[in-house]
Amino acid sequence: MAKADFVPGGKVTVRDLGGGCGRKVLAHNDSMMAVEVHFEEGAVGAEHTHPHTQISYVLEGEFRYTVEGEAYLMKPGDSVCVESGAKHGTVCLKKGILLDVFAPARQDFLG
Amino acid sequence: MAKADFVPGGKVTVRDLGGGCGRKVLAHNDSMMAVEVHFEEGAVGAEHTHPHTQISYVLEGEFRYTVEGEAYLMKPGDSVCVESGAKHGTVCLKKGILLDVFAPARQDFLG
Repeated sequence: MAKADFVPGGKVTVRDLGGGCGRKVLAHNDSMMAVEVHFEEGAVGAEHTHPHTQISYVLEGEFRYTVEGEAYLMKPGDSVCVESGAKHGTVCLKKGILLDVFAPARQDFLG
Repeated sequence: MAKADFVPGGKVTVRDLGGGCGRKVLAHNDSMMAVEVHFEEGAVGAEHTHPHTQISYVLEGEFRYTVEGEAYLMKPGDSVCVESGAKHGTVCLKKGILLDVFAPARQDFLG
């Protein structure tokens, strides 16, 4: 198996998810996966849960990010680590991009 | 245990590592950890290994990133996933910042 998965960001197209959201799956292996999620202002990442641990880091824009009913205002450079199984979601307050990193990888984002 | 670790980036100071490198430990739990590594031009992240899987994402600047002898030129938005135990290192070609995310957390970066 290759020791590294190198992904030039410019070579990945944004997959439209509807509702003003889009996704770029970036570097990953079975253990981890990096994903850019692009949001238009007002777009919503509906509350959901999954067994993967997740870190979200704000690359651009502003977000209201909620974990188990606790809300955080997030701006570029801010980050949050969401425990496995915790309910979380976000509303985009100003057009932007979240970098979401999962452990293990989100196999449901592939193919 | 709290369900989220929220870290406003502006509240974390850069820890000087010497050699033109500095580190900001961001959101983490035991399973994952996000870290900004700030590089001056010409600064070197010497080749090393660790059992943690790692994803590096370029926030700013340009880097020559090497994994097991394979070199990649990395610019903003580019990412690489490094397998557990793979030898990797980087040279900063243009002042910038890498976002490194580890699974599990780098306990050696705490305290």
